[in-house]
Amino acid sequence: MKKIAVLGHGVVGSGVLTVLEKNRSQVERALGEPVEVKYILDRRAFPGLPYSDRFVRDFSPIRDDPEIAAVAEALGGVEPAFTFAKECLSRGKSFVTSNKELVAEKGDILLALAQEHGARFLFEASVAGGTPVIGPIRRSLGADRILQVAGILNGTTNFILTKMLREGATLESALALAQKLGYAERDPSADLEGRDACRKLCILASLAFGSHFYPADVPTRGIAEVTPRDAAYAARWGGAVKLIARARRTAGGRAALEVSPMLVPGDSLLAGVGDVYNAVLVTGDMAGDVLFYGRGAGSLPTASAVAGDLIEALSGRREAAPAWGPAEPGLLLPPEEAPCRGYFRTAGLDREGLSLFFPGAFFLEPLEAGEEALITPLATRGELDAAARAAGAAGARILSAFPVL
Amino acid sequence: MKKIAVLGHGVVGSGVLTVLEKNRSQVERALGEPVEVKYILDRRAFPGLPYSDRFVRDFSPIRDDPEIAAVAEALGGVEPAFTFAKECLSRGKSFVTSNKELVAEKGDILLALAQEHGARFLFEASVAGGTPVIGPIRRSLGADRILQVAGILNGTTNFILTKMLREGATLESALALAQKLGYAERDPSADLEGRDACRKLCILASLAFGSHFYPADVPTRGIAEVTPRDAAYAARWGGAVKLIARARRTAGGRAALEVSPMLVPGDSLLAGVGDVYNAVLVTGDMAGDVLFYGRGAGSLPTASAVAGDLIEALSGRREAAPAWGPAEPGLLLPPEEAPCRGYFRTAGLDREGLSLFFPGAFFLEPLEAGEEALITPLATRGELDAAARAAGAAGARILSAFPVL
Repeated sequence: MKKIAVLGHGVVGSGVLTVLEKNRSQVERALGEPVEVKYILDRRAFPGLPYSDRFVRDFSPIRDDPEIAAVAEALGGVEPAFTFAKECLSRGKSFVTSNKELVAEKGDILLALAQEHGARFLFEASVAGGTPVIGPIRRSLGADRILQVAGILNGTTNFILTKMLREGATLESALALAQKLGYAERDPSADLEGRDACRKLCILASLAFGSHFYPADVPTRGIAEVTPRDAAYAARWGGAVKLIARARRTAGGRAALEVSPMLVPGDSLLAGVGDVYNAVLVTGDMAGDVLFYGRGAGSLPTASAVAGDLIEALSGRREAAPAWGPAEPGLLLPPEEAPCRGYFRTAGLDREGLSLFFPGAFFLEPLEAGEEALITPLATRGELDAAARAAGAAGARILSAFPVL
Repeated sequence: MKKIAVLGHGVVGSGVLTVLEKNRSQVERALGEPVEVKYILDRRAFPGLPYSDRFVRDFSPIRDDPEIAAVAEALGGVEPAFTFAKECLSRGKSFVTSNKELVAEKGDILLALAQEHGARFLFEASVAGGTPVIGPIRRSLGADRILQVAGILNGTTNFILTKMLREGATLESALALAQKLGYAERDPSADLEGRDACRKLCILASLAFGSHFYPADVPTRGIAEVTPRDAAYAARWGGAVKLIARARRTAGGRAALEVSPMLVPGDSLLAGVGDVYNAVLVTGDMAGDVLFYGRGAGSLPTASAVAGDLIEALSGRREAAPAWGPAEPGLLLPPEEAPCRGYFRTAGLDREGLSLFFPGAFFLEPLEAGEEALITPLATRGELDAAARAAGAAGARILSAFPVL
């Protein structure tokens, strides 16, 4: 019998209790012994539940109980989760979390602490909810050098962009629908501004490169500037506009990270990922392209990932080394040096004029007289920005500008 | 330093040597120490390679060398692989394989033997090549009851069916192209007849249900009876014809397994999986639908999966229990009791006449006068077969009959 605690009885925390209760025999079979939830930490009271007597409002009984072998955290935010995690790991208690902010900001510290004390710090649920991504990259692709990770990591924005593409909806109307359906939070700014996707990207990139990346260092653009017109041009081109979080290994061994709306070619596995689904495309130097796809959120799917990690943590298995170490100075490529193709939507200058600034560009059939949409050949971000500024000085109005995946 | 042996220097075996050599530092980082290939078993001589001096023609030095901690097998076929596996595992040496026939026929025995001797028997590469499937089901979805596994598990037949759907190619012409491109073997019968997909299905189903399934017990149809006309009707319906390997948990807790060409609805994640790609759609009771997608074959992708398993096996981690146990008598649902919708293409009887035998059927717009294509409501396979026989007795010629996914 293994005893654990669950921190937070919200959407994910209550889901963990459901999974462990409903699939009790499955969990026992996988682990070799039963799991009992001894404590649930929450400031609120939840009377009338079969486990109402296990609620505590203070962390210290959990921390100080030697019977507790692992703790599942679903509080969200860096504090107090970080303090709780340190107190658990330094006592040899494993810590399992769905909290992407905690992992993206403090992952290297907690991984090192876990290793030092023979405990585990696991976070499958922090990226893509119930879809396995972290475990497969860490284990199944353990012999691969990861060349690229590119994902649709935020369900809310993917839902909005899908509505824009398929129905010509505006951002505002699609967001209102997402909120009505419970897909978007009342304050959706972390989703819309790309910060949620950026945290998840940092986790995946840290895993792929073996050293920590911080969200504050990653160029991040949200979907505010995407218009239904851009979605229509993307469709005309045979592709789609998606909020893509991407980490690439560049020729010089550096890492290029960014979160941005991108034009995704129709033959990319990511182009067809619609609605609230998430997908992560991982390119290994040996395995090639591998895609993981599923619901990126939801109480039970996310709780399923937490429970899978709990089984792993309670198994007593150890890691040979932490999944990643501290940030390496100089590893991150300056954004202006990152190579990509660019999509520009412009007005005020004709094709001939635009071609002077975007030589070799491919022009899409305009959807409105006086407008032009073009896709450039490969260049650095800095070169593309300079070309757009020069075209602007010559009379072009840049209506939209996004990278191409 | 961990020492291993590789059995077989063919497509996969030589790939394993390439992965371990090229990604030496990655493997060392993941495992915490380096891996050295001490022996390569092959009847042939390979002069002029950097590791030519490590070839042996006899298995006994590998078996008897206490330094060998794990063995990677890529010989194919049940024997001598089964004998070698037993000899390794009973000496506490872990055994990693890409050999689907071995796992599908002898998995329960080898898993039990590994458990008994504190070794590991791992086989990620046996299903979907370099695409992680086995590990994620076993670990990340460890707290889920798996309700269904449905996959496109054979790249050769998927290539042929994709050519049929997109270009109206015949089976013969598409097969010839697949052979020219190196996607199909000279004797493609195991692929075309569904036996390859069936072995992989048995592995996935054994994992999902926790007890062994044998290929001989699973109803298996190949793609010989699929015509370009069926592909055209599937497209008209908005879907595709795919060779689907499916295991379902039925209402009574039994297992329904089958390999068959199926009509796949356009909104299924599997409908868009084209060319030589493989995909496995796993439905967990908590995680919901999760898709794993990638190349199902190839030297380096498959070797990447073998190498990932080698790292896991050499880590010294143990399983709490074997991934599955012996076959459970009575678990398998008789095929005629399995519920599904049916697709029928017929001639010789009009819609009115057909509707007597297939009440509630949905008729597709005919592609040729005198032909009808219909999709039935949900029924058991036995009921559908009986209806087809009755329609035949009333003058209908059944030109094609496949289940609907």
